[in-house]
Amino acid sequence: MVHTNIVQPGKLRYPTIGVFDSGFGGLTVLKALLEQIPDIEYLYFGDTARLPYGSKSVETVARYAVEAARFLESRGAQMLVIACNTATALALDQIKSASKCPVIGVVEPGADAAASASHMKNVVVIGTEATVASHAYRKALESRGMKVTEKACPLLVPLVEEGWIEHSVTEQVARIYLDQAFQESARQSDVLLLGCTHYPLLKPVLRQVAAPHVAIIDSAESTARAVAASRPQEMLTNPLADPERRSAPRLKFFATDSIEKFRRLGARFLGHPIENIEHVDLKE
Amino acid sequence: MVHTNIVQPGKLRYPTIGVFDSGFGGLTVLKALLEQIPDIEYLYFGDTARLPYGSKSVETVARYAVEAARFLESRGAQMLVIACNTATALALDQIKSASKCPVIGVVEPGADAAASASHMKNVVVIGTEATVASHAYRKALESRGMKVTEKACPLLVPLVEEGWIEHSVTEQVARIYLDQAFQESARQSDVLLLGCTHYPLLKPVLRQVAAPHVAIIDSAESTARAVAASRPQEMLTNPLADPERRSAPRLKFFATDSIEKFRRLGARFLGHPIENIEHVDLKE
Repeated sequence: MVHTNIVQPGKLRYPTIGVFDSGFGGLTVLKALLEQIPDIEYLYFGDTARLPYGSKSVETVARYAVEAARFLESRGAQMLVIACNTATALALDQIKSASKCPVIGVVEPGADAAASASHMKNVVVIGTEATVASHAYRKALESRGMKVTEKACPLLVPLVEEGWIEHSVTEQVARIYLDQAFQESARQSDVLLLGCTHYPLLKPVLRQVAAPHVAIIDSAESTARAVAASRPQEMLTNPLADPERRSAPRLKFFATDSIEKFRRLGARFLGHPIENIEHVDLKE
Repeated sequence: MVHTNIVQPGKLRYPTIGVFDSGFGGLTVLKALLEQIPDIEYLYFGDTARLPYGSKSVETVARYAVEAARFLESRGAQMLVIACNTATALALDQIKSASKCPVIGVVEPGADAAASASHMKNVVVIGTEATVASHAYRKALESRGMKVTEKACPLLVPLVEEGWIEHSVTEQVARIYLDQAFQESARQSDVLLLGCTHYPLLKPVLRQVAAPHVAIIDSAESTARAVAASRPQEMLTNPLADPERRSAPRLKFFATDSIEKFRRLGARFLGHPIENIEHVDLKE
């Protein structure tokens, strides 16, 4: 494994953040990062050959996530953003142990944002089966004094990937899930935390279905803020930045399944066309 | 790799068929096999850590399927049944090349059954994205003189796995897909071929949605018949069979993700409780 330093004598390079997800959802986090820290290099890794993580066990998700983290470090990432709720919830500690650089997940920043937004101190979290079973959000929110209801919504990711973003079927499915989530103790909840990076694409439908007093919070923006606040000193200044103007970010994408599909589906999440994609096989 | 012979001197063993699927769907094929060939040993491999295959590329599916076939041979399988439409459609030739024993997939037997059932010589096939993109069923059916319409139905597998087997949402989704499939040239179709081993669980809903003159055919039974007809001579007689009574089949299951989940979800597909599951990691 090659660990590249930021500025080697005679070999200047851009400060580099590695962003990891099981597939496409993490591109919503990358989008928020690009808005907040535009002048550096990003390496995005989507483990599309093995997605989804959300229905898989702790051991399997941890193994996959550690491989991805090592890959990004080997390509020069100096900081890792685990832009996948399932991988963060199930394997953040393992990823930190396996990495030489700082690692930030989406759960803590998401919990911060939800706790700030909830006047009733009562939050509903929706996510994949594995994220909910890990109770990572429950623990993070309870430690901030919140009452928490968690609800797994396994059909929402496939609906997003089918492109049924504002479809009546998606609205019905969301209504079934939210009705179950917001019953009994959760009637007092005033925050719906989107514990999956696919869900921001469903915000219009969720806004329609959720009660008007419920704020919808996703962790993409708060994660980007946490990254901006905590990046190491040497990443604050870009030795290659053009002093005349704010440099454009440099983007490089890696996918374990088809490049063509990554280009096609990924653009929907990132909000603009995706180029510069490389196919990689992770040997276990 | 260990290749076990059927009857080694001093070491009699049951004739053994290896059944492979990306996850649970292939258990509907195993169920049909158990009815037709009950007195042998079955090794079932579910690649649950890497499912679903249906949205992935040819290269990825072929690599995974070949690894699984090799694993089953190394555990003593003398014949392989590829009980996964996507793996059959995308990688049957690669699996055959990589295997020492006979290999049977689900596409040809399914096409046989559909062709026999269609008086109008006009068949609609539904399956995963990858199966439909491969046009394996189109080729198999056209070579039997059929007119073919293919339709990818990516939400049906997640709906089955959510357990929404006879749910109003599933009925709506099925209606949307079948309305699209049975339009224009396919109005003359009188057969709906279920090109995915998850779909037999949706037969009640599909029966409700499809026009009354349309026969619904799945490849599980026809594949089991093809296996019974083509198994090698040495597998016809079981040296260990109890002459007094028809021996019970021996079943052994392998899963790449959680055993507990395999036990829980698998029973739904096999129709009875599942024991004797071993977790395996496939090193690539």
